[in-house]
Amino acid sequence: MDYVLKIDCKDEQGLIYRIADVVFKYQLNIIKNDEFVDPEKHRFYMRAHLSGDMQEEAFKGTLRAMLPSDANIFLSLVRKKNIILLGTKETHCIGDILLKHDDGDLKANILAIISNYESLRPLAEKFNISYHCVSHEGLSRHEHEQKILEVLNSYENIDFLILAKYMRILSSEFVKHFEKKMINIHHSFLPAFIGANPYKQAYERGVKIIGATAHFVTDDLDEGPIIAQDVIHVDHSMGWKQMQRAGRNVEKVVLSNALDLALEDRIFVHENKTVVF
Amino acid sequence: MDYVLKIDCKDEQGLIYRIADVVFKYQLNIIKNDEFVDPEKHRFYMRAHLSGDMQEEAFKGTLRAMLPSDANIFLSLVRKKNIILLGTKETHCIGDILLKHDDGDLKANILAIISNYESLRPLAEKFNISYHCVSHEGLSRHEHEQKILEVLNSYENIDFLILAKYMRILSSEFVKHFEKKMINIHHSFLPAFIGANPYKQAYERGVKIIGATAHFVTDDLDEGPIIAQDVIHVDHSMGWKQMQRAGRNVEKVVLSNALDLALEDRIFVHENKTVVF
Amino acid sequence: MDYVLKIDCKDEQGLIYRIADVVFKYQLNIIKNDEFVDPEKHRFYMRAHLSGDMQEEAFKGTLRAMLPSDANIFLSLVRKKNIILLGTKETHCIGDILLKHDDGDLKANILAIISNYESLRPLAEKFNISYHCVSHEGLSRHEHEQKILEVLNSYENIDFLILAKYMRILSSEFVKHFEKKMINIHHSFLPAFIGANPYKQAYERGVKIIGATAHFVTDDLDEGPIIAQDVIHVDHSMGWKQMQRAGRNVEKVVLSNALDLALEDRIFVHENKTVVF
Amino acid sequence: MDYVLKIDCKDEQGLIYRIADVVFKYQLNIIKNDEFVDPEKHRFYMRAHLSGDMQEEAFKGTLRAMLPSDANIFLSLVRKKNIILLGTKETHCIGDILLKHDDGDLKANILAIISNYESLRPLAEKFNISYHCVSHEGLSRHEHEQKILEVLNSYENIDFLILAKYMRILSSEFVKHFEKKMINIHHSFLPAFIGANPYKQAYERGVKIIGATAHFVTDDLDEGPIIAQDVIHVDHSMGWKQMQRAGRNVEKVVLSNALDLALEDRIFVHENKTVVF
Repeated sequence: MDYVLKIDCKDEQGLIYRIADVVFKYQLNIIKNDEFVDPEKHRFYMRAHLSGDMQEEAFKGTLRAMLPSDANIFLSLVRKKNIILLGTKETHCIGDILLKHDDGDLKANILAIISNYESLRPLAEKFNISYHCVSHEGLSRHEHEQKILEVLNSYENIDFLILAKYMRILSSEFVKHFEKKMINIHHSFLPAFIGANPYKQAYERGVKIIGATAHFVTDDLDEGPIIAQDVIHVDHSMGWKQMQRAGRNVEKVVLSNALDLALEDRIFVHENKTVVF
Repeated sequence: MDYVLKIDCKDEQGLIYRIADVVFKYQLNIIKNDEFVDPEKHRFYMRAHLSGDMQEEAFKGTLRAMLPSDANIFLSLVRKKNIILLGTKETHCIGDILLKHDDGDLKANILAIISNYESLRPLAEKFNISYHCVSHEGLSRHEHEQKILEVLNSYENIDFLILAKYMRILSSEFVKHFEKKMINIHHSFLPAFIGANPYKQAYERGVKIIGATAHFVTDDLDEGPIIAQDVIHVDHSMGWKQMQRAGRNVEKVVLSNALDLALEDRIFVHENKTVVF
Repeated sequence: MDYVLKIDCKDEQGLIYRIADVVFKYQLNIIKNDEFVDPEKHRFYMRAHLSGDMQEEAFKGTLRAMLPSDANIFLSLVRKKNIILLGTKETHCIGDILLKHDDGDLKANILAIISNYESLRPLAEKFNISYHCVSHEGLSRHEHEQKILEVLNSYENIDFLILAKYMRILSSEFVKHFEKKMINIHHSFLPAFIGANPYKQAYERGVKIIGATAHFVTDDLDEGPIIAQDVIHVDHSMGWKQMQRAGRNVEKVVLSNALDLALEDRIFVHENKTVVF
Repeated sequence: MDYVLKIDCKDEQGLIYRIADVVFKYQLNIIKNDEFVDPEKHRFYMRAHLSGDMQEEAFKGTLRAMLPSDANIFLSLVRKKNIILLGTKETHCIGDILLKHDDGDLKANILAIISNYESLRPLAEKFNISYHCVSHEGLSRHEHEQKILEVLNSYENIDFLILAKYMRILSSEFVKHFEKKMINIHHSFLPAFIGANPYKQAYERGVKIIGATAHFVTDDLDEGPIIAQDVIHVDHSMGWKQMQRAGRNVEKVVLSNALDLALEDRIFVHENKTVVF
């Protein structure tokens, strides 16, 4: 059996020794191991890929007894995660994920696609993915989100909710249900050009580089912990629609990279920052 | 003789024909020619590298008669420009420019270095460049800037004033003296992390990319027309001082690229944007 | 009506004037204009986006009379091009093109997909694109290519043939049929790692950057004129299969960018190099 | 006291536990720790930044007793390294290193600059660095290298020899003296454009990206283990001299980054590849 073990806690002397000791005593192999101590926050992060047989709860219990009381211990079998895609009308990010899924190249089962429009249904149907149109027409934000939650609740064991160009703002209440489990792709190099129509903003400002940012969604719109970012060079000859078009390639690649990291349990979130191994 | 001709004006049918006609009649060779029509602003931009002999004023007059009344016509012999460097304490940008200058690899004469500290004097002396320390101690902003202006006025024909990590804010009054002639390097990917200590801001925000921006200085701090930008990838393992250190390589390269563009008269500024050929 | 006019010829004084003169006399608007003179080869390149009504042959004839005898004059209505995709088994490049096509975001009609395997048929069917499996099993190269040509000949007005991870070498004879019309994506930063399994080669060599190259196909395998290239950073922790996986994102974006350039008639080929406006 | 400990050996179960055990028993703090197991070569790499007081030889002896017999154990106090720069005529890489050194921003003492020309002497003198011109005129390769070795032998404890655009080929015999201690900057993205004048080669080939590579020098010219690489985009409008000029910025930054990694003992070399933490 293959496991991912993630531990983060305040730093102390001997942590690696204590953890290695427990791993050794449970006769587990360390296939891959990453550590990082944040020198400013004095926080220890470790991710290990383990192989072997174990009593999961017993192992976690032994570890917990050796670690500082604030330790987060995450242990997961290496397995395909369950994800749901949330979109609006744009196809490039969702299509990219569907292609990879169809190819067997994604460590995830796509349980469903949810959108507030019918626009993405043909794409979902091409790839035989359940599609739920939850229109926001005539509904308050609260009512709309309740309807989305109803759909989500009809699925079990959702590991991640992927906002693949979902263009509506989600309430704090909704966000709370998917803390550190909801990933958004924002169509700018955050924190530049927060808010609506970032390509137009970038064009108006005359920047020479545009980008995209994948981040966990938190209460603060466009302010959640950043997982991945990338950029491309642009110049004066590009209008904002051309920037937008060129930006789509960046968006889908950045979201795809962030999704891979999430699916392999490579991301730690502490306060508003990520540690990514 | 080699000339750079730059024209920008509202777009009209036949502009290229009319300009090419004048150039042809003056028996000038077009060595290189770039044009751009901004489709949103309906503005025409042209930069030509011409060779031949001409009566400059006559040529400009003939052109002016053929062009819309709002046309900016810039004509300059290809020559080394005169620049003055303004710094504070950091050496990486100024040192990089001095090295290129010393190497004969810069199309500019460095007339002087001005700083509000003595820190850069040893570097200036290594390269035999006049150094003026104009301390701000005990002076109001206005008084300090007056003293800097006095130094600047002792030099003739300054083409560009280069703020190579000058860390004080300049007043609108001062800026007015060097409109479209003063280039600043800002140590972030603008418009992200405007203001003080951008690397600390970037670190706190947990971004995965940092950068630098060279721009013309205008009244609005950190808001002037952008000339050049570049970025590098960073990760959680870098504290803000490491980001700052890594960022210095980006800063000096971006400033160097922007300076090259300015020295070759490749930049147009219209409203708050640049067109760069 | 909108046209793209492309001219390349040996450089001479007054070319721009003469061309602008003809354009002016035909009362055509220049929407966008790019020129370049190669200073080493003394060759002139111009691409103009024109709008207006014209007798195409008359216009070209008038131009020809004004230009050096070696001039290539290309004039094309702005229209959707007809393309055929040639693949083997991998889906990422073809899928990416199909998604864009389906989205109405590609200036092309995809006439068909041809492969030497059945593997891509399900993908083609999802998007309702004609699929031709032309197996190479038991055939000589010549016989196999003849069969592909038969399929190709059943379509009219093919503008470009896109080798979207087609993994077989094409003969000179075949290549001759699609000179400057056949674009290949090579899974390395050419000229590094020419030939088979470039990711394995890159891994073995321990490079810190991998990339992809889109180029026109010529007689010399992997040696044709380069249209577009891009790269990503890699490190020691990536095995060659991980490099290959990461590289796929680069491959599809580079091919997509090269295809856009081709579809908009932005590429000149002279000898073994491209000029791209 | 601060130490860097580097261990590489064939992988075995329990290595981390055993090492952590020794570190714990010597009451050393682990400030930073990186590990990597190469899954193809089954080789274990670890670099730890330790703090505490120790008997160095005893500590290494205890470690050695716990590790596979092929283990390389490197232990070094965190200190400024001693380097010598070897150049020919170009100033950009050497100047960049001198500026950083002068700024106190380099974890190294520059003992001397050696060149086969007098060209770099003025630069060395500006920064008060000993300069040795060892002309190759009239000498065989062997004789010339002997003279360089004489100069090198007059310095003690040289940690790294930096080939900062040294344009002569070194013999196997010479290279043997500085195995894994000699870093070269090659002015191309290796393995593309090996050999002389790579910018000209890149120009002739029409590539859209150029780069630079820092690598350890081995017997095989331009084939040593790669430490760092970076690239920039270029286009048809750049002649090879412009590529060369633009490339210099890449060269100096890549060499600077590789030098930092070497000075902090972050690089492992195994066979022809590096592992860089």
